[in-house]
Amino acid sequence: MSLLKIASVPPAAVAPDTTVLEAVEVMAEHGVGAVGVVDNGQLRGIFTERDVMLRVVLRHRSPQDTRVGEVMTSPAETISDEASEEDALVHMVEHHVRHLPIVGADGQLKGMLSVRNLLEHRVDELARELHSLDQYLANDGPGG
Amino acid sequence: MSLLKIASVPPAAVAPDTTVLEAVEVMAEHGVGAVGVVDNGQLRGIFTERDVMLRVVLRHRSPQDTRVGEVMTSPAETISDEASEEDALVHMVEHHVRHLPIVGADGQLKGMLSVRNLLEHRVDELARELHSLDQYLANDGPGG
Repeated sequence: MSLLKIASVPPAAVAPDTTVLEAVEVMAEHGVGAVGVVDNGQLRGIFTERDVMLRVVLRHRSPQDTRVGEVMTSPAETISDEASEEDALVHMVEHHVRHLPIVGADGQLKGMLSVRNLLEHRVDELARELHSLDQYLANDGPGG
Repeated sequence: MSLLKIASVPPAAVAPDTTVLEAVEVMAEHGVGAVGVVDNGQLRGIFTERDVMLRVVLRHRSPQDTRVGEVMTSPAETISDEASEEDALVHMVEHHVRHLPIVGADGQLKGMLSVRNLLEHRVDELARELHSLDQYLANDGPGG
């Protein structure tokens, strides 16, 4: 299964000259904690709520006057849409990141995968399995 | 196994009248994304990097002049140290939180459990299992 099926597609994205305040507004609108930083469709970096805290607030920078290009993480850790969910999760844990931009062979940003996407998908799967088991026990099981 | 064994203990914590900037400094020192807000040892709420972004930066509040007590999440979702890792993870996914303060029967904050704690512990366990399997194949296995 392609990771794009559980990622945010299209991903929230901003240009490098977007202000931090505007990027925060984009994250709030999308209900996400990270945006891709994109120039002509090419991924240049990632900007997250962790960056807002550590590179803007902690450094006494002004959210109105600071550009995302100055405080983003670049290059970003990325992943191919053909990787497995498990590989993506291990990659996130090992690199201490909560988001992985999904990038095509052409360097274009195609989606944004979060730990939350992976966990919610896994919980949904478990819920489906439990539901199937319930159905089995109600209809075809040993009864009782 | 007690969840306290994989959580941050003692947890990063601040008083309600701490400024947002001071709380961010505490989170940066501890390398974490959330602090417990504690009054006389009793948990009053939780303050996270998501709150920094959405309740401070997005709302044009000053990190120097805003108190954590004004922008924390209260009451916080909490968990008992006797819950299972799986229950904790499902609780986090369902409640859309990345941190769960571990609170004793007396309301005292004992630790802070993060999604990262749970995932790192799981990855460590898998690595140990793989190592045991390697040892088995090298020493006691069918050979080759």
